[in-house]
Amino acid sequence: MGSAPADLVRTIYVDGSEGRTPRLPTDLTTLEDAAAKELTATAFGYVSGNAGAGATSRANRLAFDRWRLLPRMLRNTAARDLSVSLFGQRLPSPVLLAPVGAQSVVHPEGELASARGAGDAGVPVVLSTAASHTLEDVAEATGDRPRWFQLYWPSDRTVAESLVRRAEAAGYTALVVTVDAPAFGYRPADLDHGYLPFLHGAGIANFTSDPVFRAGLPDGADHAAVVAHWARIFANPSLAWDNLAWLRSLTRLPILLKGILHPDDARLAMQHGVDGLVVSNHGGRQLDGAVAALDALPAVRAAVGDAVPVLLDSGVRTGTDVVKALALGADAVLYGRPYLYGLALDGERGVTHVLRCLLAELDLALALTGCTSIDDIGPGLLAPPGPLATPAHS
Amino acid sequence: MGSAPADLVRTIYVDGSEGRTPRLPTDLTTLEDAAAKELTATAFGYVSGNAGAGATSRANRLAFDRWRLLPRMLRNTAARDLSVSLFGQRLPSPVLLAPVGAQSVVHPEGELASARGAGDAGVPVVLSTAASHTLEDVAEATGDRPRWFQLYWPSDRTVAESLVRRAEAAGYTALVVTVDAPAFGYRPADLDHGYLPFLHGAGIANFTSDPVFRAGLPDGADHAAVVAHWARIFANPSLAWDNLAWLRSLTRLPILLKGILHPDDARLAMQHGVDGLVVSNHGGRQLDGAVAALDALPAVRAAVGDAVPVLLDSGVRTGTDVVKALALGADAVLYGRPYLYGLALDGERGVTHVLRCLLAELDLALALTGCTSIDDIGPGLLAPPGPLATPAHS
Amino acid sequence: MGSAPADLVRTIYVDGSEGRTPRLPTDLTTLEDAAAKELTATAFGYVSGNAGAGATSRANRLAFDRWRLLPRMLRNTAARDLSVSLFGQRLPSPVLLAPVGAQSVVHPEGELASARGAGDAGVPVVLSTAASHTLEDVAEATGDRPRWFQLYWPSDRTVAESLVRRAEAAGYTALVVTVDAPAFGYRPADLDHGYLPFLHGAGIANFTSDPVFRAGLPDGADHAAVVAHWARIFANPSLAWDNLAWLRSLTRLPILLKGILHPDDARLAMQHGVDGLVVSNHGGRQLDGAVAALDALPAVRAAVGDAVPVLLDSGVRTGTDVVKALALGADAVLYGRPYLYGLALDGERGVTHVLRCLLAELDLALALTGCTSIDDIGPGLLAPPGPLATPAHS
Amino acid sequence: MGSAPADLVRTIYVDGSEGRTPRLPTDLTTLEDAAAKELTATAFGYVSGNAGAGATSRANRLAFDRWRLLPRMLRNTAARDLSVSLFGQRLPSPVLLAPVGAQSVVHPEGELASARGAGDAGVPVVLSTAASHTLEDVAEATGDRPRWFQLYWPSDRTVAESLVRRAEAAGYTALVVTVDAPAFGYRPADLDHGYLPFLHGAGIANFTSDPVFRAGLPDGADHAAVVAHWARIFANPSLAWDNLAWLRSLTRLPILLKGILHPDDARLAMQHGVDGLVVSNHGGRQLDGAVAALDALPAVRAAVGDAVPVLLDSGVRTGTDVVKALALGADAVLYGRPYLYGLALDGERGVTHVLRCLLAELDLALALTGCTSIDDIGPGLLAPPGPLATPAHS
Repeated sequence: MGSAPADLVRTIYVDGSEGRTPRLPTDLTTLEDAAAKELTATAFGYVSGNAGAGATSRANRLAFDRWRLLPRMLRNTAARDLSVSLFGQRLPSPVLLAPVGAQSVVHPEGELASARGAGDAGVPVVLSTAASHTLEDVAEATGDRPRWFQLYWPSDRTVAESLVRRAEAAGYTALVVTVDAPAFGYRPADLDHGYLPFLHGAGIANFTSDPVFRAGLPDGADHAAVVAHWARIFANPSLAWDNLAWLRSLTRLPILLKGILHPDDARLAMQHGVDGLVVSNHGGRQLDGAVAALDALPAVRAAVGDAVPVLLDSGVRTGTDVVKALALGADAVLYGRPYLYGLALDGERGVTHVLRCLLAELDLALALTGCTSIDDIGPGLLAPPGPLATPAHS
Repeated sequence: MGSAPADLVRTIYVDGSEGRTPRLPTDLTTLEDAAAKELTATAFGYVSGNAGAGATSRANRLAFDRWRLLPRMLRNTAARDLSVSLFGQRLPSPVLLAPVGAQSVVHPEGELASARGAGDAGVPVVLSTAASHTLEDVAEATGDRPRWFQLYWPSDRTVAESLVRRAEAAGYTALVVTVDAPAFGYRPADLDHGYLPFLHGAGIANFTSDPVFRAGLPDGADHAAVVAHWARIFANPSLAWDNLAWLRSLTRLPILLKGILHPDDARLAMQHGVDGLVVSNHGGRQLDGAVAALDALPAVRAAVGDAVPVLLDSGVRTGTDVVKALALGADAVLYGRPYLYGLALDGERGVTHVLRCLLAELDLALALTGCTSIDDIGPGLLAPPGPLATPAHS
Repeated sequence: MGSAPADLVRTIYVDGSEGRTPRLPTDLTTLEDAAAKELTATAFGYVSGNAGAGATSRANRLAFDRWRLLPRMLRNTAARDLSVSLFGQRLPSPVLLAPVGAQSVVHPEGELASARGAGDAGVPVVLSTAASHTLEDVAEATGDRPRWFQLYWPSDRTVAESLVRRAEAAGYTALVVTVDAPAFGYRPADLDHGYLPFLHGAGIANFTSDPVFRAGLPDGADHAAVVAHWARIFANPSLAWDNLAWLRSLTRLPILLKGILHPDDARLAMQHGVDGLVVSNHGGRQLDGAVAALDALPAVRAAVGDAVPVLLDSGVRTGTDVVKALALGADAVLYGRPYLYGLALDGERGVTHVLRCLLAELDLALALTGCTSIDDIGPGLLAPPGPLATPAHS
Repeated sequence: MGSAPADLVRTIYVDGSEGRTPRLPTDLTTLEDAAAKELTATAFGYVSGNAGAGATSRANRLAFDRWRLLPRMLRNTAARDLSVSLFGQRLPSPVLLAPVGAQSVVHPEGELASARGAGDAGVPVVLSTAASHTLEDVAEATGDRPRWFQLYWPSDRTVAESLVRRAEAAGYTALVVTVDAPAFGYRPADLDHGYLPFLHGAGIANFTSDPVFRAGLPDGADHAAVVAHWARIFANPSLAWDNLAWLRSLTRLPILLKGILHPDDARLAMQHGVDGLVVSNHGGRQLDGAVAALDALPAVRAAVGDAVPVLLDSGVRTGTDVVKALALGADAVLYGRPYLYGLALDGERGVTHVLRCLLAELDLALALTGCTSIDDIGPGLLAPPGPLATPAHS
């Protein structure tokens, strides 16, 4: 498994020299600008849009930029292994596709293309409840590769149970419960466009395909009635810690909470028997002004110790970002918007391109920091801002 | 009362999807750019202009950006109540319209439209002494909603007394005495345009309608003579702490001082029997280089403890700004320039739009930080800049 | 004397409203952009150009921006006095024209127009050795107002002595010896243009008019020979502390050293009997990367205590900059490039305009900070960056 | 030797005034922009391109900007000596040409022109293994001036030995072994262009001219086969500390390691008998996010004490940058991309121009900081960011 990333690097350098048109950029921080030129304003607004004035989105990036790497030399890094173990599964790298809903907004094949493209790059998928395609269809697209299911916990418990049962049946091996979205964030791009994909039918396939959901519909319900029913049960602002016991009793899948930022919430999660955490601020799309996810990570890790895996999303763009997240305590990262831009620009191939670039840079970062495995990445690689020492006089 | 903001949110999301032309932006930090395109240079210069090179105006915004929110999850925030109590009155939210003079410069209906628009959004008005419409007319426009009166204390004490008596009679329930304007600030936009609204008759309606002021005019005074008389008595650079006793003896209305930044001045205010404070630097329009109001807030709050309400203005733009101000010790905020831009762009409806956006984001911020009431907002929601913890090694 | 600035303010506000074309901007930080549009590239490059990549010039401005003012309210500031005493002279304000050489590059009347314009605004002149007009002519233009002479100490001691004697005879009352220019700075604007004013004859009038200098010329010396002779003696890189005794013995005028940044040099100056210091980095025109003058000021003041006056230049642009410099320990400031831009844009009137704006903002800053005299300005007016206090929790 | 820089200064100022077309800029931080206009996209991408998103490249510059110089006055700096001693050789200044490969990409005469241009400016060359011209030809171009050889240590030890023997024979007097490139960095500019110079035959002259390398080629090898063979042996990701003993046994030339950032690696280098270090992050071209070289310097110097020379590259642009690097512990600097831009813009003359500007500014910086020799440069010249002292009150 460890040889794949090396192949990726070689392929990029050598294939790259042969040219391909149109090419996506290899600087993954520039994908957003490339996508802005291709997508409609509403589609680009939906994918790139942040809560409020975008302060948290910027903070996410600044938090990565603040840390510097202090590499080691002459350590024989010819053979490198990017694989990690999570919940008893060996994954090719510490990167998973972050759950993003309504992907048909940017590409007709949506999550199916993302799943295939990620499969080509060896990256597991975390599928969103709000997918444009059913979890069963996406499961088929991922083949025999690992897949997890993200749960927006509906206010109708029977629908929630049905979704979990279907995810189990379709071979999803972990449940990622998003807890930072008791309500939609205040997102000016969507508000200015008067556009929410779900009200147009995108991203509700897991509901319209669900027998329990359908049973709740009035006879002869038209599209508007279906959407209205979805709107009634989708959001669940009354969720509280005590509700977790019910979910815990429902399934033996590992349960992760996504959206934890406060170390006290991390401790509460441990007390409620949660199996893992995703430190996240929803990519800056929920609470404008929320702390950067990377800034919250060390305190969350300190709060839970080694008890459970801690993942991170929000702001990851490059291979060295992955190194920084791992050095600060993450076991793996979820990778979000950049693959959406790849999907928007070139479908399945675009997703593969973006992920191969990411893994190539990660693999090179191991070589260049003196690491041969993910376990070699630790806080010793990190330098604080500013001089590492000051001259005696100053 | 607590249900109104939830309605606002629902309306914005659902109505927003139906479209309306022309629409004002929902990112309230972009209103100034939108207004710049519509207003004349003199009108825009008057509203947006800052003292000097604008350092304090920028500092106000940076102070808000510096703080990060550390939200809590899974706390059942389905029911939320934004209301607060001030001086024995229950207000729908911790937001009041800041006093801004001469609003006819940007819209012919001026303060009347602002008062009606604020009323539609459930926001009380603090009317400026320098209004373009008389305090009696604005009182009528606010109907039975709470209204406060801002006092520029004229150097002619008989006129000052007359203004206070009229405010009492018109149902204003608090006096906000501005203390940071013993002289007009040095405002290059107005100076470059050679434009002061008051010299053109805008913003002196409370004087020209005042019997005591009129009695001081020479017989047959033309417009120029009226303005000259106004200029003689409007500013009062000799005001000092000792003068407060006279005002205190004059009225039973609660007296707030607006423009306090130094904690020692906050203590002096307590010694002089003041009922409340507004921490403010006049939106950066008086002393260029003055400390950001938000930076001054915690020290002022620490100086007065819980003795009196402390409000804040200067730099508030978004719903999460309100959360930050309250977490740092404010009981409520005054909201200024953004509503002027709403007024400029769409009159009364524009004011309502801006305030509904603000309250919607505030309401969502409660949901997303795990709060169900304004009292739940405290310093525990705030994260300092940078990582919340550092890995053991670094 | 204290009433003049108040007159200035009134005039600006009231006259300003009457309009004048062309008008110079009243935001003094924008003068450079205005001048850039009017001047030739070589002239603008000479005046605005900095050493190297301009880091020190930017640092000068950032140092002013870093400090915030914490104003006091309700202190009766109706009557304000800007005057200060230096070396037994009462000056109308703590502002003097900084010495700038070769002013004929931007305006044919050069230093004569500057001196007249400064006189109209009540600002004393510090005339540069490298003036385009003779010190005698400029003395005449300043009339009976205070004037100081800046000395570039030539390597020919007889010429140095002649300059000092002439300055004494022409009524200059202090000598400002520039010590930060043992060589010209590395100034890319001038280097790129291949343009040094002095090689074209601008800024050497005090030499060509000097009998001792002329006596050193070969018979029949043409323009090139005069310039070459000037180039041989103008710079004096071998100057050292011991040389000061000779100058001290030469004159009873107070001697200030201009260009001191290190507190140890300030102490050495005291040991060598110097009468005053000008903390300065030559406006960022000599050593790129030099510390901001304002950052150096408190340490220099601490080093000399109250023994001698300490002045500051480099980066002063606005009236609140003057307040900050004084609060950090300066007794007065030298004001440089902005008046050059005023001179370039409107000659003598432009200089007056710029200085009146500066003094108007300074006067208002006193009113708005609760001061009635320059002595009221102290470190208590300064706030450090960031919150003045933090809430208990954080 | 010490007089040369003074000549440079004089020449620049005086010759500058005579004009020359086309002129290169004298602000060396602007050379990149000038080169961007002249070079092809692939050539400019190769020279200016950084690893990843360029964070380390920016960090390198910010690290220089963060430090401020605190100059001393009146120290008689008329005579200045820029020379330094390294490994028993006296060098005219503490500046050497950094090794940069494949220079024919920007100019047909490549390293030959650089060597001649550097010679004209009195600057020694560190020649890259990846040069476009053979080390023997470049040795001839450098004449009798000092030259060092940079070694990319090939994975084929017999080729490595051959390169070292040839360097010895050609008069190179030090070996600079690059240790931060076990693999090519992830460089989006090259990847986007699908362009690596070496795959096009540029930068492999020292291999194609090498008898041992050629002996390893199959009979009748065409260009593609030569490049493929080069690709097999050029990179050596398995290098480790233990390999140094072999190199040490091979040659009596001083061995420097280039690319050390971690102080523990500096200590390891001392334990393995290395003769010198170059603190470097490869100009930000290898590991994006690596610590700024200047930030790493003081800790490396502290780790090795005065045992061996420590040089620095990565981010040096101006003469005052050299002063800062030396004040923070470097004995000399390697100067890289700016001379490539000079080469690109004007060949040999462009290289000379750039270096003369650099040395002129360095020479002036000595004069203006009160130094007369390189030994006078120490940490006492450095000021930390911010005020040097704070007023008692604040």
